[in-house]
Amino acid sequence: MKTSFAGQRLHHEATARIRRFLDHEQPGTPCLVIDLPTVRDRFTAIRDALPGVGIFYAVKANPTPEVVALLAAEGSSFDVASPNEIDLCLAQGAAPGTISYSNPIKKARDIAYAYGRGVRLFVSDSEHDVRAVAEHAPGSSVMLRILVDTKGSTYPFGKKFGCAPEMATDLLRLARDLGLVPLGVAFHAGSQQLDPNGWDGAIADAAEITAKLRAEGVELSTVNLGGGLPAGYLDPLPPLADYAAAITASVSRHFGEFAPKVMVEPGRAIVAESGVLRAEVVLVSKKSYSDERRWVFLDIGRYGGLAETEGEAIAYPLRTSRDGGAAGPVVIAGPTCDADDVLYQDTCYDLPLDLRAGDHVDLLCAGAYTTSYSSVAFNGFEPLATYCVR
Amino acid sequence: MKTSFAGQRLHHEATARIRRFLDHEQPGTPCLVIDLPTVRDRFTAIRDALPGVGIFYAVKANPTPEVVALLAAEGSSFDVASPNEIDLCLAQGAAPGTISYSNPIKKARDIAYAYGRGVRLFVSDSEHDVRAVAEHAPGSSVMLRILVDTKGSTYPFGKKFGCAPEMATDLLRLARDLGLVPLGVAFHAGSQQLDPNGWDGAIADAAEITAKLRAEGVELSTVNLGGGLPAGYLDPLPPLADYAAAITASVSRHFGEFAPKVMVEPGRAIVAESGVLRAEVVLVSKKSYSDERRWVFLDIGRYGGLAETEGEAIAYPLRTSRDGGAAGPVVIAGPTCDADDVLYQDTCYDLPLDLRAGDHVDLLCAGAYTTSYSSVAFNGFEPLATYCVR
Repeated sequence: MKTSFAGQRLHHEATARIRRFLDHEQPGTPCLVIDLPTVRDRFTAIRDALPGVGIFYAVKANPTPEVVALLAAEGSSFDVASPNEIDLCLAQGAAPGTISYSNPIKKARDIAYAYGRGVRLFVSDSEHDVRAVAEHAPGSSVMLRILVDTKGSTYPFGKKFGCAPEMATDLLRLARDLGLVPLGVAFHAGSQQLDPNGWDGAIADAAEITAKLRAEGVELSTVNLGGGLPAGYLDPLPPLADYAAAITASVSRHFGEFAPKVMVEPGRAIVAESGVLRAEVVLVSKKSYSDERRWVFLDIGRYGGLAETEGEAIAYPLRTSRDGGAAGPVVIAGPTCDADDVLYQDTCYDLPLDLRAGDHVDLLCAGAYTTSYSSVAFNGFEPLATYCVR
Repeated sequence: MKTSFAGQRLHHEATARIRRFLDHEQPGTPCLVIDLPTVRDRFTAIRDALPGVGIFYAVKANPTPEVVALLAAEGSSFDVASPNEIDLCLAQGAAPGTISYSNPIKKARDIAYAYGRGVRLFVSDSEHDVRAVAEHAPGSSVMLRILVDTKGSTYPFGKKFGCAPEMATDLLRLARDLGLVPLGVAFHAGSQQLDPNGWDGAIADAAEITAKLRAEGVELSTVNLGGGLPAGYLDPLPPLADYAAAITASVSRHFGEFAPKVMVEPGRAIVAESGVLRAEVVLVSKKSYSDERRWVFLDIGRYGGLAETEGEAIAYPLRTSRDGGAAGPVVIAGPTCDADDVLYQDTCYDLPLDLRAGDHVDLLCAGAYTTSYSSVAFNGFEPLATYCVR
């Protein structure tokens, strides 16, 4: 049984600010409340742990305008996946030069649009895309994403992104021949990568490609370590310093005297712990008289923003208004008429025995990959609302 | 290898109407086009195949207002999951008496809202909900949903909905004691139920409960067979008549001389085949020089409306503008920076060897469970647009 281990670093002050907001405003549920000082705190912690490293916030993790504006003001750069995310960053004060269009899957007209808005950095993983960048964003910098082993991460990346190192090497040569700036190798070690050494193998691959091209006179200045820095959900994490030390040592070991510029693209590590998602209990029931577990149905589920509960990959810490008394095991499910809309039946949660319809359940560390995943209206339920506190 | 078996019953005229719309309007992709005459045709076919049976369209399958309006005009009833779906049906001309609030997971204030709007039929599966209906919708009719075996369906329902028959029997007695009308037993045989006999076991259970209560003087007038009627995707289906015959025979066999009123709640069987989803190829690439399959990336994926490709449960028939020439195996993926946004890697699709970025790919039979599942803006991509042709 997993007790509700706290969102590790969600400070007491942050919790107090969010509670004050919820108590005072009484917003309809479900809703997400983002504590902006926590976003700033996490960004600053990562920047301090990785001095000299370019931090490109993965906007997809949480595109709330106030979050993007805060990070732009703090000097963050941005990893974007689409023209809308570019527009969002620019509208919130980001300079075009701080944006990396890191989605290797881009329409030609979207590349042209990005270029028109001043974006000059693109990540690619195919010949077609390199040629499209050369045609529609001439002279830009390009990084080639390689396929890497992502075991150790909660979300291994399979083969959707990246290409074999041999092909990436050829495509960096092609980029140069097409008048682009071949900036370096990019990869992604898998989202919510829990192993501090989870980046090492890919860093070695990137260094090998970089050395090979240097021998040909092609100088790659940069390595892009992608995302993967984890957030603290139900289980404890090693401290951020362990990840920073392992990554720094790995870059130093594999690149040696030719120290590259380093980029990272954290998303959930910056925003997850800033968010509390307030839900309401719709129903507590049993399916038969012999049922050992109660079913607790919330007014949010997989289609209302909790997409990362698929396969129960992310287990959010839970708080209820009745914590402290006797508790017992539950299955937790969402409100739609969809049988897949069950959040946790294998992950063991205990909730108060006197929990009942109308009570609130707060999901902690819910600031990443929630609002923007929310469906427009599945089963007629409204999209997840977001509020920010300062 | 599965060739693109046609959406079985998507008539040539329907395809021609949709093509004409797409050619003339050139809407941005991705978009869904619904052929309203096909919706009418499917509704009529089900009504004719199941004479005397109450057909409650499962609004969640496709809540496009024009679809609901057409079905209301044709005399359909409606299965709704939330207050928003009630409002939608009433706004499109449905009478309150034709609405069943069939989601057993309801907030008390949503029950009260439904009652205020004239809804008098509720499906329940727990003591708490029966009591809530009695309090907030006094005198209404209530059906008790039982847990059933859903093997044979593409989407087995697990244990999220329904309760054990013994508990359902007690709750029907309770409903009567609380001044409600205990209308009968409800169940769901699983979505996309391919086996014409897939309803039989549950019908037997419903008849047993009905007979038991009749012996006590509690007369249940109705049985609600739920959804599950399948739509024709990539693989051929038995004809609708086979399902109708099996269901009719099963009700007759188990209920005997006490023939109940029968309700069904089809969703995809009415709307799936009416819809063509037009997507654009964003990229065709290989991951390594030895890759045997190309990767085809579309501008729609799991988060843009194709949620039913999870586990590759639903395999849509595909058409491209280059069909007819040589074809070869592909992996098909969506446009987001999400590794789970891969549509088909185990289902074998062959697509034209000369397919390239900018080409259109049409997904047939995409009228159900697409638009309303679409995320609000994951990765900055817009929700799926819907157009209707008449």
